[in-house]
Amino acid sequence: MEWVSEDVPFWDLTTEALIPPGVVIEAVVISEGNYVVACTEELANVLELLGIDVLEYVPSGSLVREGSVVMRLRGDARKLLTIERTLLNLLTYLSGVATRTKEFVDAVKSVNPRARVAATRKVVPGLRYLVKKAVKVGGGDTHRFSLSDAYIIKDNHLAIVGNLRDALRRVKSVASFIHKVEVEVSKAEEAVIAAREGADVVMLDNVTPAEVRRAVELLKHEGLRDKVVIEVSGGINLRNVKEYVRAGADVVSTSELTMNPVKVNMSMEVVKVVSKS
Amino acid sequence: MEWVSEDVPFWDLTTEALIPPGVVIEAVVISEGNYVVACTEELANVLELLGIDVLEYVPSGSLVREGSVVMRLRGDARKLLTIERTLLNLLTYLSGVATRTKEFVDAVKSVNPRARVAATRKVVPGLRYLVKKAVKVGGGDTHRFSLSDAYIIKDNHLAIVGNLRDALRRVKSVASFIHKVEVEVSKAEEAVIAAREGADVVMLDNVTPAEVRRAVELLKHEGLRDKVVIEVSGGINLRNVKEYVRAGADVVSTSELTMNPVKVNMSMEVVKVVSKS
Amino acid sequence: MEWVSEDVPFWDLTTEALIPPGVVIEAVVISEGNYVVACTEELANVLELLGIDVLEYVPSGSLVREGSVVMRLRGDARKLLTIERTLLNLLTYLSGVATRTKEFVDAVKSVNPRARVAATRKVVPGLRYLVKKAVKVGGGDTHRFSLSDAYIIKDNHLAIVGNLRDALRRVKSVASFIHKVEVEVSKAEEAVIAAREGADVVMLDNVTPAEVRRAVELLKHEGLRDKVVIEVSGGINLRNVKEYVRAGADVVSTSELTMNPVKVNMSMEVVKVVSKS
Amino acid sequence: MEWVSEDVPFWDLTTEALIPPGVVIEAVVISEGNYVVACTEELANVLELLGIDVLEYVPSGSLVREGSVVMRLRGDARKLLTIERTLLNLLTYLSGVATRTKEFVDAVKSVNPRARVAATRKVVPGLRYLVKKAVKVGGGDTHRFSLSDAYIIKDNHLAIVGNLRDALRRVKSVASFIHKVEVEVSKAEEAVIAAREGADVVMLDNVTPAEVRRAVELLKHEGLRDKVVIEVSGGINLRNVKEYVRAGADVVSTSELTMNPVKVNMSMEVVKVVSKS
Amino acid sequence: MEWVSEDVPFWDLTTEALIPPGVVIEAVVISEGNYVVACTEELANVLELLGIDVLEYVPSGSLVREGSVVMRLRGDARKLLTIERTLLNLLTYLSGVATRTKEFVDAVKSVNPRARVAATRKVVPGLRYLVKKAVKVGGGDTHRFSLSDAYIIKDNHLAIVGNLRDALRRVKSVASFIHKVEVEVSKAEEAVIAAREGADVVMLDNVTPAEVRRAVELLKHEGLRDKVVIEVSGGINLRNVKEYVRAGADVVSTSELTMNPVKVNMSMEVVKVVSKS
Amino acid sequence: MEWVSEDVPFWDLTTEALIPPGVVIEAVVISEGNYVVACTEELANVLELLGIDVLEYVPSGSLVREGSVVMRLRGDARKLLTIERTLLNLLTYLSGVATRTKEFVDAVKSVNPRARVAATRKVVPGLRYLVKKAVKVGGGDTHRFSLSDAYIIKDNHLAIVGNLRDALRRVKSVASFIHKVEVEVSKAEEAVIAAREGADVVMLDNVTPAEVRRAVELLKHEGLRDKVVIEVSGGINLRNVKEYVRAGADVVSTSELTMNPVKVNMSMEVVKVVSKS
Repeated sequence: MEWVSEDVPFWDLTTEALIPPGVVIEAVVISEGNYVVACTEELANVLELLGIDVLEYVPSGSLVREGSVVMRLRGDARKLLTIERTLLNLLTYLSGVATRTKEFVDAVKSVNPRARVAATRKVVPGLRYLVKKAVKVGGGDTHRFSLSDAYIIKDNHLAIVGNLRDALRRVKSVASFIHKVEVEVSKAEEAVIAAREGADVVMLDNVTPAEVRRAVELLKHEGLRDKVVIEVSGGINLRNVKEYVRAGADVVSTSELTMNPVKVNMSMEVVKVVSKS
Repeated sequence: MEWVSEDVPFWDLTTEALIPPGVVIEAVVISEGNYVVACTEELANVLELLGIDVLEYVPSGSLVREGSVVMRLRGDARKLLTIERTLLNLLTYLSGVATRTKEFVDAVKSVNPRARVAATRKVVPGLRYLVKKAVKVGGGDTHRFSLSDAYIIKDNHLAIVGNLRDALRRVKSVASFIHKVEVEVSKAEEAVIAAREGADVVMLDNVTPAEVRRAVELLKHEGLRDKVVIEVSGGINLRNVKEYVRAGADVVSTSELTMNPVKVNMSMEVVKVVSKS
Repeated sequence: MEWVSEDVPFWDLTTEALIPPGVVIEAVVISEGNYVVACTEELANVLELLGIDVLEYVPSGSLVREGSVVMRLRGDARKLLTIERTLLNLLTYLSGVATRTKEFVDAVKSVNPRARVAATRKVVPGLRYLVKKAVKVGGGDTHRFSLSDAYIIKDNHLAIVGNLRDALRRVKSVASFIHKVEVEVSKAEEAVIAAREGADVVMLDNVTPAEVRRAVELLKHEGLRDKVVIEVSGGINLRNVKEYVRAGADVVSTSELTMNPVKVNMSMEVVKVVSKS
Repeated sequence: MEWVSEDVPFWDLTTEALIPPGVVIEAVVISEGNYVVACTEELANVLELLGIDVLEYVPSGSLVREGSVVMRLRGDARKLLTIERTLLNLLTYLSGVATRTKEFVDAVKSVNPRARVAATRKVVPGLRYLVKKAVKVGGGDTHRFSLSDAYIIKDNHLAIVGNLRDALRRVKSVASFIHKVEVEVSKAEEAVIAAREGADVVMLDNVTPAEVRRAVELLKHEGLRDKVVIEVSGGINLRNVKEYVRAGADVVSTSELTMNPVKVNMSMEVVKVVSKS
Repeated sequence: MEWVSEDVPFWDLTTEALIPPGVVIEAVVISEGNYVVACTEELANVLELLGIDVLEYVPSGSLVREGSVVMRLRGDARKLLTIERTLLNLLTYLSGVATRTKEFVDAVKSVNPRARVAATRKVVPGLRYLVKKAVKVGGGDTHRFSLSDAYIIKDNHLAIVGNLRDALRRVKSVASFIHKVEVEVSKAEEAVIAAREGADVVMLDNVTPAEVRRAVELLKHEGLRDKVVIEVSGGINLRNVKEYVRAGADVVSTSELTMNPVKVNMSMEVVKVVSKS
Repeated sequence: MEWVSEDVPFWDLTTEALIPPGVVIEAVVISEGNYVVACTEELANVLELLGIDVLEYVPSGSLVREGSVVMRLRGDARKLLTIERTLLNLLTYLSGVATRTKEFVDAVKSVNPRARVAATRKVVPGLRYLVKKAVKVGGGDTHRFSLSDAYIIKDNHLAIVGNLRDALRRVKSVASFIHKVEVEVSKAEEAVIAAREGADVVMLDNVTPAEVRRAVELLKHEGLRDKVVIEVSGGINLRNVKEYVRAGADVVSTSELTMNPVKVNMSMEVVKVVSKS
């Protein structure tokens, strides 16, 4: 939790002035709404490293209701008050990601239980590890972690190197056998070309559900439907996501999960002063 | 822009496969909506350090419309495609904060031009410097940067040390003359006690506009209105913010600015391949 | 205590050659003079993290006499001998700051118990957190921690932007309500201007006690004496500090506390070889 | 100059409020006394990296007089005002070390031009590189940089392993041929034992000049005087240092150089506003 | 090139003593044998950042002969001599990896031009980025970069969770659609199970060429040969690698590439003293 | 063990998918050959810090046989599987260095028990601390750790400053009394000059055994043999090393120890699942 030092470049003026060293308290983190909780395991580990006892916590992925206890902590009062805000900032932000993901997953599964909702690389910098965990916790697919774990040929690549078919051949020839190759297209016909060239995944970017349907049909017609995963991205939201799944997408990916998390409120309350120095 | 390495722990597989070294391109960042742009100066500095020429950019605080150019960049194609996502993630997130801030500032100023909208310390960890800048750019008050630049006595402090008056006296006796002292209260009467003890700022937390009005009147009655700044916090949103200002708050602070930023969309487009190796 | 690695880029040649692994010793840090001890709590925490037991220590702020024990430690002999010098360097330097601060505080309080002695930002780079703590421990006022926690308009700002009144108005219009505003002046008349414009603190820089007195009187005459804190800085030393306080300064600030600490001598002595491997 | 961020955890409030971006200034660092200047080369390098032009500077080791220019800088006004204090803190502290070293070197050379003044490892943590450079600049001997570049058997080693002769044999048997071996003793007879066992350097710690003389004579008598360097340490100051040199010490080492540097005053003055944006 | 500081914790004693500041030299890196050169682009970038001009260099992947110039550099003599060893250590180590890789690739391609040689995760810690680049430069397949970019179920996983089929089903159900799934087996029959469960890659670990052949036949018989990539690992060396390829492996992976690189010798020679200060 | 994060930029996909949290296992590191084990103490410390119990380990410097247990570990299964590869990479690499060192030491000691085998600064960047430890563990001499702990005048220095005698005098005049001075020469006559000027060590670089013999005789003839250590370097290998020792070298140094370590194989095996969550 190196983030604490961002919040305390020198020291916590108020806490040091008011709380004597050696006071031990018990405090609870309370949920102020109904959410999917995320990353409590990771946060508990960090708290333990900081010398704070985590007496109990709700496991990642649990649904909590308004008023329920998310974490119960015991430790030095100065430490707990100093890290309170950083802990809550992380916990609420990540639970907001998980809760939003759950909303999308529920919508999608209601149409096709095998379809998936995936995050994108649109993530607030510095938190990717935890944000991707929160997506997973909410039932989502993490997608690429970074530019180093799969190939995705995007419009800007093609704007420079031109032709889709050549780009795909070039990538296939240099890619490790352990990495998948995806390509971003905007028309059903391009999806067919990509499938023919051996792309593992085809992403239809900024298209209508009708275009998705057309791509599915063209691929079936060519006997290529089972060769590729069809991902749809761009402009997906809770209102239109089901339509895309109905149109045949295997995966819908959206930055809503990570750039528009549910605003989660939780607070920390001191419940007991265990001992005074 | 150390955040790039989070997105590229090894290398950008696709870009390295497709784009030869030495290709120089020109690219633009395009706004896909109407927003207040934030932190373009800071981002331009970092891009220059990375060896990318920033040909032009819209200054922080400007309003951009859908389709307008936010930044124009020239540089090595590999570098530009590799940092594209990180750049856009930062720019859209921060502009989202500035845009949300502007909405609140406009609402507040329409009621009282001298009232202020302030951020809180509820900020995604790791980005505080830039997020606080974005708040300022949107016309907001940055409030405390951290626990080290002002005293704010909060409910959890009082839960441990008890009495408000004693806590305030203790803080006043040890605080540097250069730091202000604020106290969080939940009733008008406590605001009066705080003002009497020399608090610079009184924060009414989670109160109704009526309670704010009552605090203002009590303070006036005691001749203390000009001695303290009245801040209101807790549950403030765009619908109720004007009411609190009408009730007499000098400052309204809300985590909406930083934890519920407007979702901003911008994209990078290659506009020219300047030279090929 | 990351500073240890500066002292041991590879390993402690002598200790590794002479002391077998697994030897446990008890050692004491002995004061070789009469000093105010500083930062033993922080150092004890670090020692514990390094796996050394801190059996006892004199609390920060205590006066120790020649020959008395400042810390009593038990732990692996290799570790203790390796960190010995770094520990002593920190402890003696910081206690030197606290001891010097105490001298100034005693001088000032003998004239006016409500006047304060403050540190400046003249601090050896890298140690500001601990040095400011040591100032506090010695009874001093920490003043600004950094350029980010208060506004101080200095001569070089005015050399560029000109007029004091305009600068102050500009700063007042953008400063957060939570940050104080101070201005450095060199004449009594400027102090009055500053007070009228709402400066929280006026620093008279490099002036005579007579000029301080004149400023106090002018401010009283204008009914502004209670509106501002008067700080005096520049050329303050133990010989002249009382004069400045008598002249009416609320705060005297001096780099003597941090750039001319008392030279403190302490040594570490092995008192027992508890166990040999 | 990573130390700047310690002074500016967020941003320089005053400078950002008052100085518009794009203002270019010229400024000089002026000496307010007569000193040996140190480490201007290193600081100039860092300033250039920060984008500040170093128009001229006095080379390390030069004597400057009151009022003379130490560095002349040109650059962005915001940057220069933001780093002003950190630059001056480093420059004055290091020049104070060099100036103090020069005092000792002059004293020692007046007695014996081949005798040396050496620093110890008593150095404020975090600055060792620059402090050792400053000692060199002042004409001093840097001595060990760290625990990893030579063997020195000290009293605490002997307190654990016992016998001097055995310790020396053990060290000699494991030391690399490229590292020297020194031993700390408190009596002339021990110096003879050390020399016999092949120590490269013998340090007489906390002894009188008479004891030094006695050690020299004993060593001569045994035909060992040319086999070892005689270092004297402990309680050396400007008043007694010549006596130790007269007694026959090859090297005197003292923490006065680094823990009691001359208090140097320098200031930065804006001399020209070159351009405004 | 942060590695330089490991080689110079304080300063380069000899160079600073002998070479005055301001001397500019030209130097060449000469190959003392016939090798595949690796990572000259990355090293050239770092040298430029350090202020050294890279006048020319042999591109990564080139074959150099004994006596030929690998890099030609110009810059400050102190800087060049200080980084000489670190530069050569990196360049020779990485070229050794590329050269060894090329030997394996040549052997494999002589049998089957479509078969591949892959590195493993057995890599000296701290250098993975560059070592994987060197493998690629030598014509090898980089395989997984880390534990985060593909699933490989290994013997220790199975030792804990038991059954191969269950493990594979579990992994397939949680894996992102963008990541491949590989499984390590030791018998041909397990390869068939893995292929049936949808593994993308099957690694035959520590098996004979005969077993590889048997696995290929079983898979063909089941109509699964085209569904999986067959990787062989464990005990592969230059003598037996062709046999494994002949037996039908698509990929052979071996730690020989990265843990037994060819020992490459290169040296840096000063060819011109361009200017003296 | 910060190196783990290089291997797990996000998380260990497979382990997290297969192993539930809370499973505790016992595992052993098994040697697959006969080696000198190195740095088990350092690795055990790091493992303990990571929360893994080190139940037993073979001390650094021990000879292990094929099949014997090197370390026995108990801890969380997820953690152990995640760090397995990094642990083995370090342990095998460092043991390879120690084992190779031992081969050279045995060869040399069989000719002259007082002669030494030394490492050079040719070391894979980032691991110098541990690699030098491994050399020591194997019975070798660590030689210089870095450019900051002794003076060695090399050919490139002389290429710039010219004359050997002048260079040596210059270095002797500025070197600290605590640092040794070595010079690299290529002829017997130069060795004599170096010895006359007071070099502590003379390195004959890239010479024949005959030239070494000639240098020894010339030095004896001048009565200088005991004044200098004779080091031989360049092209030394296991076949020719004895010859150089027979010719009279005190020290032979070779990069074989660190750049051509024995390829060591060890593996980690799960021996018990202690508890399941």
